[in-house]
Amino acid sequence: MLHIALDAMGGDHAPRPEVEGALLAARELGVKVLLIGAPHVLRPALYAAGWTAEPIDILPAGEAVFMEERAVRAVRSKRNSSLRVGIAALKQGAAVGLVSAGHTGAIVAAATLYLGTIPGIARPALATVLPTLTGRRTLLLDIGANADCKPAMLDQFAVMGAAYAERVLGVVCPHVGLLSIGEESSKGNLLIRQSHALLRRQAPHRTFVFIGNVEGKDLYAGVADVVVCDGFTGNVVLKTSEGLAAAVLTLVQQTCAAASSSADVLSGLQRVRRQFDDAEYGGALLLGVPYPVVIAHGRSTGRAIYNAIRVARDAYVQNVGHQIAADAAVAVPTSPAHRNGVAQTYNKSV
Amino acid sequence: MLHIALDAMGGDHAPRPEVEGALLAARELGVKVLLIGAPHVLRPALYAAGWTAEPIDILPAGEAVFMEERAVRAVRSKRNSSLRVGIAALKQGAAVGLVSAGHTGAIVAAATLYLGTIPGIARPALATVLPTLTGRRTLLLDIGANADCKPAMLDQFAVMGAAYAERVLGVVCPHVGLLSIGEESSKGNLLIRQSHALLRRQAPHRTFVFIGNVEGKDLYAGVADVVVCDGFTGNVVLKTSEGLAAAVLTLVQQTCAAASSSADVLSGLQRVRRQFDDAEYGGALLLGVPYPVVIAHGRSTGRAIYNAIRVARDAYVQNVGHQIAADAAVAVPTSPAHRNGVAQTYNKSV
Repeated sequence: MLHIALDAMGGDHAPRPEVEGALLAARELGVKVLLIGAPHVLRPALYAAGWTAEPIDILPAGEAVFMEERAVRAVRSKRNSSLRVGIAALKQGAAVGLVSAGHTGAIVAAATLYLGTIPGIARPALATVLPTLTGRRTLLLDIGANADCKPAMLDQFAVMGAAYAERVLGVVCPHVGLLSIGEESSKGNLLIRQSHALLRRQAPHRTFVFIGNVEGKDLYAGVADVVVCDGFTGNVVLKTSEGLAAAVLTLVQQTCAAASSSADVLSGLQRVRRQFDDAEYGGALLLGVPYPVVIAHGRSTGRAIYNAIRVARDAYVQNVGHQIAADAAVAVPTSPAHRNGVAQTYNKSV
Repeated sequence: MLHIALDAMGGDHAPRPEVEGALLAARELGVKVLLIGAPHVLRPALYAAGWTAEPIDILPAGEAVFMEERAVRAVRSKRNSSLRVGIAALKQGAAVGLVSAGHTGAIVAAATLYLGTIPGIARPALATVLPTLTGRRTLLLDIGANADCKPAMLDQFAVMGAAYAERVLGVVCPHVGLLSIGEESSKGNLLIRQSHALLRRQAPHRTFVFIGNVEGKDLYAGVADVVVCDGFTGNVVLKTSEGLAAAVLTLVQQTCAAASSSADVLSGLQRVRRQFDDAEYGGALLLGVPYPVVIAHGRSTGRAIYNAIRVARDAYVQNVGHQIAADAAVAVPTSPAHRNGVAQTYNKSV
C-alpha cells in the first residue's frame, strides 16, 4: 500500500480539514496516510471525525511553519516542523508523496533544499489545472515558485508540464503554449521572445507539440493542454482569475436573486462556482523535484485535501518524475545566452 | 467648440461604428468630430446614418494601417494613413484629442514618435478602467504599451495614473497600488521589488498615497484607485479577465437556461455582461503623450466609440497632461540603478 505524507499543521483551519481529507483518502484511494503533527492533537481529532480502522499513521512533529514567516529561514531553523518531517519521510522512503496546505514559499524552499531537482531541471515549478469552457484541462505553470525566470527555465517548464499532461491527464502528445500578449513570435517581453525561439528550436526533439504563443483570453478557452509562463505572471493570472470569477458570480447571484427566487437558478450558480473553485482540483503540484509534492490551498476543505492526496498518488503511480528526467535529458543543451539571455539585452537605459 | 479627431479606418468593422459614434458624440458631447478617412466612403455613410446638421468635418486620408502590419514600419511608411493624419491634426492644433480603434502598437508608436512624451515621462503607458464589486473604479496601467519596464517607468506610471484618477475620475488623493504576488514588500519579481522601494522613497513628495503591493485578487475588489504594472503583465491580466468573464457568464447562461426560462434572469445576466464589457468604458487612454489619445477596442460598437470620444474630451478638459508634468517634475531624480535596475542584478545564471 502506498504511503502519502500529509502535513496536518499547515492549513488555515488545521488540523480539521487535514483529518477529514486523510480519512476520505484512506477510505477511497487505497493509500495509507501519514498524518504529521502533534499526536495529542491529531489522535482525538481523528477519533472525533470517525476514525476506526482506516490506514492512518501519525508522524509526530513538534512545531509548524506559519504563513507570516520568511520561508528559507523558517525551513532551516525549524528542524522539527511538520514540513521538515514530511520532507524527511520522502527522503527516507517512508512516503512516496507529500501534501501540505501550508506556506507555499516554505514548501518550495524545503523541497528544493532537501530533495534537490530532477537531473536536467534547474528549478521546480508549481503547476495547476484550469477549468475551461470545452472541458479540456489546461495545466498552467509556473504559478509562483520562480518570480524571475530565464528562457531555459521556461523551456524546462514545458518539458515538465507536458510530462504531467501525458502521464496523469492522459493526453497523447500534449499541445504546449507560451503565455504572451500576441500570437506572433515577435510579441511579448524579452523573456518570452527568447523563450519562444528556444522552444521552437528544441521542438524537433520533443514528445510534445509547441503551438507557439497563446494569450490570456485563451487560458479558459481550452486551446492548449499546457501553458507555460514565469511564476510572477502565472501567480498574478491565477489570483486575478480567482478574484474575477468570484466577483462575476457574486454579481450574477445578486442580479438573479432580485430577478427570480428560483431554486434551480441558484443551484445552477453553485455548480458553476464549484467549477471555478480550486477545492475541486486539489491544489498545485510542485514539478521538478524527485517526489510528488502537492501544495493545497491554505483554506482547503477536507474534500480539497482528499483531492490533493489523489494528485500526489497519481503523480507517483504514473511516474511523472521519470518522464521529466527522460525528456529533459534529450533536450539540446542550451547556450549561456539562453540561460542568462534576459540580462544581456536588458541593459538599455530608459 | 472642442474638436476631437476620430480615425474612421481603424476598427474591425470601420467605418460604420465610427460614423455612428461620431454622430452620437456630436449630438451629446458638445464637440465637433473630425472624421478621418476616404471622403467618398464617409460622406455617404454619414448620410445613411442620419447626418443632418451635427458638427462633423471629414479629414481626408488615403490609406489605413492594418492589424497584421508591423507597427513602426507601417507608421513611418504610410504618411497619408488615417492614423498619421490624426496625429498631425493634434500636432497642428486642429484637434485636442484623438480616438482610434486601430492597431494598438501602431497608435502607440505614432504618438510616441511624432508627439513625444511629457517632460519627466520616459514612455507613455496605456490605462483602462476596471469594473469592481464595490463600484469604485480602478485604473490599471500599463496594459500593453511597454512589454519590458524599468522601476523608474513604473514610478512614472503611478504619477500618470494618479493624475488621471484625480482629474478625470474625481478621486481626491488617489490610492495607488503595485501589482505583485504578495502584500509584503519582499514579494514579487526583481522589477516589482525595486519599483516598490522607489515608490516608497518617492511617496513623501507625491500627491497620491502609495498603498504598497496589491494582488490579482484585489483588482476587482475595489481596493485601489490606480494599480500599476508592466505592460506585459497588464496585458495578460486584461485578456485573461476578458476570457474568464466571458467563460463564466457563458456557463451561467447555459446553466440558467436549462434551469429556468425566466426572462428576468437572462436580462440580469445581460446587465452583468455589460458591466464587464469594455464598450461601456470606451477603451484605453494613452497617458504620457502631450495630447489625449484614446485607443478603442478593434471590435468597438458606435456606443464604444462615443465613450472613447468622451474620455478624450474629459482628459483634455481636465488637463491631465498638465498635472502629469507638474507631478513628474517634483519627483526626486532617480539614480541610474533605478533606471537600469533590473539589468544589474538580473545577471545570475540559472
